[in-house]
Amino acid sequence: MMRAVDIIAKKRDGLALTSEEIAFFVEGLTTGAIPDYQVAAWAMAVLLRGMTEQETVDLTLAMVRSGKTLDLSSVASWVVDKHSTGGVGDKTTLMVAPWVASLGLPVAKMSGRGLSFSGGTLDKLESIPGFEVNLSTERFLENVRRYGIALTGQTVDLAPADGKLYALRDVTATVPSLPLIASSIMSKKIAGGANAIVLDVKVGRGAFMETLDQARALAQLMLRIGHNVGRRVTAVLSDMSQPLGLAVGNALEVREAVEALRGAGPADFVEHCRVVAGEMLLLGGLATDPAEARAKLQRALEDGRALAKFAAWVQAQGGDPRIVEDPSLLPQAPVVETVAAPRSGYIAALDAREVGLTAVDLGAGRVRKGDPIDHAVGIVLAAKVGARVEAGQPLFTLHARTEASAAAARERLLAAYTWSEEPVAPPPLVYEILRDA
Amino acid sequence: MMRAVDIIAKKRDGLALTSEEIAFFVEGLTTGAIPDYQVAAWAMAVLLRGMTEQETVDLTLAMVRSGKTLDLSSVASWVVDKHSTGGVGDKTTLMVAPWVASLGLPVAKMSGRGLSFSGGTLDKLESIPGFEVNLSTERFLENVRRYGIALTGQTVDLAPADGKLYALRDVTATVPSLPLIASSIMSKKIAGGANAIVLDVKVGRGAFMETLDQARALAQLMLRIGHNVGRRVTAVLSDMSQPLGLAVGNALEVREAVEALRGAGPADFVEHCRVVAGEMLLLGGLATDPAEARAKLQRALEDGRALAKFAAWVQAQGGDPRIVEDPSLLPQAPVVETVAAPRSGYIAALDAREVGLTAVDLGAGRVRKGDPIDHAVGIVLAAKVGARVEAGQPLFTLHARTEASAAAARERLLAAYTWSEEPVAPPPLVYEILRDA
Repeated sequence: MMRAVDIIAKKRDGLALTSEEIAFFVEGLTTGAIPDYQVAAWAMAVLLRGMTEQETVDLTLAMVRSGKTLDLSSVASWVVDKHSTGGVGDKTTLMVAPWVASLGLPVAKMSGRGLSFSGGTLDKLESIPGFEVNLSTERFLENVRRYGIALTGQTVDLAPADGKLYALRDVTATVPSLPLIASSIMSKKIAGGANAIVLDVKVGRGAFMETLDQARALAQLMLRIGHNVGRRVTAVLSDMSQPLGLAVGNALEVREAVEALRGAGPADFVEHCRVVAGEMLLLGGLATDPAEARAKLQRALEDGRALAKFAAWVQAQGGDPRIVEDPSLLPQAPVVETVAAPRSGYIAALDAREVGLTAVDLGAGRVRKGDPIDHAVGIVLAAKVGARVEAGQPLFTLHARTEASAAAARERLLAAYTWSEEPVAPPPLVYEILRDA
Repeated sequence: MMRAVDIIAKKRDGLALTSEEIAFFVEGLTTGAIPDYQVAAWAMAVLLRGMTEQETVDLTLAMVRSGKTLDLSSVASWVVDKHSTGGVGDKTTLMVAPWVASLGLPVAKMSGRGLSFSGGTLDKLESIPGFEVNLSTERFLENVRRYGIALTGQTVDLAPADGKLYALRDVTATVPSLPLIASSIMSKKIAGGANAIVLDVKVGRGAFMETLDQARALAQLMLRIGHNVGRRVTAVLSDMSQPLGLAVGNALEVREAVEALRGAGPADFVEHCRVVAGEMLLLGGLATDPAEARAKLQRALEDGRALAKFAAWVQAQGGDPRIVEDPSLLPQAPVVETVAAPRSGYIAALDAREVGLTAVDLGAGRVRKGDPIDHAVGIVLAAKVGARVEAGQPLFTLHARTEASAAAARERLLAAYTWSEEPVAPPPLVYEILRDA
């Protein structure tokens, strides 16, 4: 008879677990037959001893099997999902989802909430008056069929083992483990019914992977998992040393996404979305090479199809589509303060994590799961790394609930900049794109 | 404010914890403010990342401070404790405690119960009719004052953090960690009021440390802890590749200890006790060198003082002292079967762990904490490693509850022997003695 303590000891000693042992452990943690303290010791052993690719695949599949899986075949023959590992100002889904949907690629996506410096798509969408992010499975499928796009919160039915394990990892310092991160992401995507997945793996101070090597290792592992379980996966390794785009904060990011869909978004954000959306079109068979994908995407942006799909999506999920034409219908912060550059020079660095944490200080994010958030507040940058700024020119605008929180944010944010007398090149947007061979 | 998760992360990353962090963690685990799953993750990180000597000292002292400490100064000016890391047939305390007490060295000792292949002194003493192993603190102190000897079970008041941590380690595969083992042993001994301690560190298949290197590392660490907290410590690294003495099983071991105190015990067991008792006399200032200690011990054995002290001790704790003269008053097993050697040859090895587990099968020990045990059953060996045995000569005698259990034990035990055609040297009794400089 298998015993949890023997499985923990085996991993502690650096040995590879069998498929049966992993299945036993995941089933036990799902049902509660294996108590939290044994799961915690095992997770620490996994973090410090690692897992083979086969173990990671087995763990992913065991977590998929721990609950229901979503069958999208009745509403779409081929679904391409996207997933971001999380960052600051990362409103990519808000632009990419309607963009590819407007070209006929069905989007049936589950998203999460923000935590610590990292924002969450559900929180951003909830800043749209009336927008409903918790759809029943029936309504979710119906919306995909009728509008070609639907987005909902993760349901507990899907990969419940991942939900329990993640909650425990969060409080036992066992989050930063490549096999645990990779299996967590991939199990949710697979249970969610995706046939193919574009992974947006963020790299830098505003991401969970701070170095390119870490991010590449995670991406390669997720590609291998996908390969093993018959899902096509592409990973985009993208910069998160500074925030993506200019807006950080929920309603402010929705507003920026709408501007981008109208063709007037920040260049870095739009280009990033173009890359991610392009890879989705390639995996979805709607383009045969990146150039064709870019051309199709450009047309959908110019002729207004992408923006129209965004409006239809908002309306289909109960939101007020008039925000597209009148962004003042989005929540507005009472205190809006533009802060001037304290000196002249080139912006050499802008610490994305500090920007994210400043937004949390303003109320835009959470310190702990379940904390309430303020959709109106946040930050809009006026310039990014590589820009030349003169003293007294606008550097950023704060949207705050109170004067006091604006003042604290001003100090913290000013300290997040590094200045240079010499010109500085902006960081690349995308470091690498890994495609499964 | 300190957070448990940050302390776990620090240890996970291989950094040394401060005294304050260790105190915070131990207090939290004692009160329950830090939940079991965080303690379990921390214990696995400690096991895999290790601890510095200073951390181990801090952990030991924090566990001592987690409860009461016993003050023996009212009953004895200087108390030398002994502790065995556990083995098979290890009835050393039964002989050593009255032996040194008979020479005027006060014994105020706490002992434990057996688990798995390893026996426990409390279980052995409880095979004496009437013997009370749970003394109140008052009676324990009173007995030390009046008789110079008292032994009781570990009370939960002493080092409760160790009790909680040990229970958790047992089910999370985090037992085999040198700093956790060393701090567990030393915290209990320090809380128990010892001024000096002789550690009997067992090495081999019937011990928790299977190699001399492991045992030496553990012993050195405990010596360093003792040095840091002002306790004199001596470690005896002794063999546990085969059982100690001939008897394995509770009443059988009491009987063997009484025979040894009478001067008729197995040579290896008596010599082992002589070494341990001698080191206790040295630490207690009752001898200035090993030769003097041995001479004093020899006289106490020959003139009957040691045996008389044993009888007085039994009587003082409510036991029937007539067992000294009439061992048939001890529990007797209904089935006694002598098994003959299946072949002629030299005994090259006798797997102590298998002997211990066979005794557990017979009912002499426990698979799980709290299981009942049968005091009468066990094994008495007729020959040990290095002996020449002819086919058909007695090899061992089984004391069993049923014919069926005797038959199963016979098969298991016969398989635990390795035979040789060539003469084989017996293993050394004592590998090394480490004394704090």
